[in-house]
Formats: sequence, C-alpha cells, structure tokens
Amino acid sequence: MEIESLNQLIKIFSRLPGLGPRSARRIVLHLLKNPQTIMARLAEYINEVNQQVKTCQTCGNLDVSSPCNVCLDDLRDHSTICVIEDVADLWAIERGASYKGTYHVLGGVLSAIDGITPDKLSISSLQKRLSEQNIQEVIIATNATLEGQTTGHYIAQLLRDSNIKISRLAHGIPMGAELDYMDEGTLSLALKMRQDF
Amino acid sequence: MEIESLNQLIKIFSRLPGLGPRSARRIVLHLLKNPQTIMARLAEYINEVNQQVKTCQTCGNLDVSSPCNVCLDDLRDHSTICVIEDVADLWAIERGASYKGTYHVLGGVLSAIDGITPDKLSISSLQKRLSEQNIQEVIIATNATLEGQTTGHYIAQLLRDSNIKISRLAHGIPMGAELDYMDEGTLSLALKMRQDF
Repeated sequence: MEIESLNQLIKIFSRLPGLGPRSARRIVLHLLKNPQTIMARLAEYINEVNQQVKTCQTCGNLDVSSPCNVCLDDLRDHSTICVIEDVADLWAIERGASYKGTYHVLGGVLSAIDGITPDKLSISSLQKRLSEQNIQEVIIATNATLEGQTTGHYIAQLLRDSNIKISRLAHGIPMGAELDYMDEGTLSLALKMRQDF
Repeated sequence: MEIESLNQLIKIFSRLPGLGPRSARRIVLHLLKNPQTIMARLAEYINEVNQQVKTCQTCGNLDVSSPCNVCLDDLRDHSTICVIEDVADLWAIERGASYKGTYHVLGGVLSAIDGITPDKLSISSLQKRLSEQNIQEVIIATNATLEGQTTGHYIAQLLRDSNIKISRLAHGIPMGAELDYMDEGTLSLALKMRQDF
C-alpha cells in the first residue's frame, strides 16, 4: 500500500458514485489481475470516450457530434421538448422507445442545500429554445423526488405565460406493482388522479 | 446510447467486481461531467499503475519492484511466512501493523466447482521457498470460509512432514467472514493468538 500511483488510483475510484475505499481496492486488484484484457482496455476506452463524446449545445445530450443525433433526427417531433434532469434519464426514456420528441437536459435539480440555483441549470437555454423554435409542448419529466418536483414546478411557473402547453409525467402505480407494497403517497395520488376506464 | 466507445466503456465498468449496468452508467456519466479533473486522471493513473506495478516473483505481492519491499525489508522476520489468498488480505494484515514476517500470496483458493486445482495456486513456489530458505514457521491465514479452510488444511497436510512449525490464525474470527472485511484489532489479535495446526 506504499505505492503512490496505486494509492492515487484507489482514491480516484473510491470517489466515483456508489464506490468506497473497499470496493475501490477490490476493483483495482481485479484490474491488476487482468492487465491486458481489462486494465489497458479500460484506460484506452476512457481516453477514447473522453475525446469523442461531446455535450450537445442544444439539448445537453451526450453524443459524438453537437448537435446530437436526437436534435438532428428529422423523423423526430421537434415541436415537443421533454425536460429531464440528467442524461441517464434521457437514456431511460430512449430505452422505452415510445417517445419521439426532443429533449432538454437540465444538468441537475434546484437545491438550496447544495447551492444549486436556477442559473446553474440549463434553464435559460431552454427558454432560448422556446423563443427561437416553434415548440408546441414541454413535458416536465424531472424525477418524482422532492427536489425534482420543486424544479419541475419552478420551470412550469416560468413558462406559464407563454402559449406553450406544459405537461408532466403521469404519477401513479407503476406497471407490475402490487398495491400492498406501494407507499401511501403514491396510492393516495393514484386514487386522486384516477382516470376514466 | 448509440455511441460504440461509450457502450464499450460502460460494458467494461459493468463487469468490474461489485458493479452492474446501472452503476456503470452512473460512473461513466460522472466521469463525462468531469473530463479533466477525474476522467483524464483516471485513465492516466490506470496506465501508470499498469506499467509500474509488478507481481513479486517471490511472494506474489504487488509492488513497483520484484522482489517486493516486504521481501527486501531486512527489518522483517524472514523465517516466518504468512500464507494468504489474495493481495487484499496482505493489505488488510499490513493495516494491522503488528505482523513483521513475510507473506506468500496463493492467488485464490482450491475450488472443485471453479476448477481451481492445487497447481493453479502458488503452492509449489511456497514449497520451493520452504526448501531453499531457512523458514521456521508458516502461518496459514486463508479466509475463514469453507474454501479458505479447505485450502489451509491442504497446505498444512502437505507441509506436515517438514520440520517447519505450521500455525493458523486464532479463532475469534467469526466463521464465514473474510479477512479483508475484518477490523484491524481482530486481525492483530488473531495473529498473536495463532495456534498449532
């Protein structure tokens, strides 16, 4: 454990999301057991991705080009923007393969504790898109957490006076869920927001 | 998600111990948010460690030199060898800072299911060390798991006819626990209270 570079590598790994000192040590030992097949390739791909992948200047998506493939795709509906917190959420919605509009990645959520004010999120660039492009609908798809909902409300309020339709993801019981395992908040909301059969 | 290098990078991360597809995506997005401060440095240190760190030809430890610092340290007791499964176990014992002998890393445990036979572990090199060097004691410090104990018994049986004292870590370590997860106090105590095999 006296090797400086090794300690540094473990330190960097241990600060990645979801990892700690022990899991970082485990990963680094695993890498050292496979120097060619895994370790060298990992470094190679990190550098390749670092060089190739750009943030789309329009929507904040990650792609090899800016504007990204979603923004350039003529087959998509460019009058609808889905506002999300993070690129991971974009990927999650794309996995569903049912949404055909465009996206806008906020890059986080409003948080007084962490000092995330509206100017730290991509909100002004969203307003710019709304004023420059012919947008019919903005779908607020922030997470169903306290911060996510607060951020969603803030944006909805901000856009209230425009002529653009503002919608949000339906709240309710997820597919496949059992009522008995649902939390009270979701159940109450699902009852209140009940839809005609 | 159509970017080939990005998919490859997520795939490599998701196969590291303790990680899955979701945590791998989270880590890669975190890296892409910090291209200079974290991402570039991570690749740099992976390459540096990959080039610098060698496996000690004597004991199997990882170090920048072979023989490693432990094997070269004249202040350590070279008549005692502590036999461990993995380098992580060596680090764990070194954190306890009470053991002053040398080590021998087996590189795993005997396992019929995984096809790990004695010739796949560094057992013959241990026997070579015992015949060439003046060793007084071998401390079996394999994990307190079924495979670890089986491997320990196998080695103890193998060395039974030599004039070398064979000992093992004191009980006090709960069955089923792994060295790497033990606190230093328990590890030091188990070393001090070691019993004859």
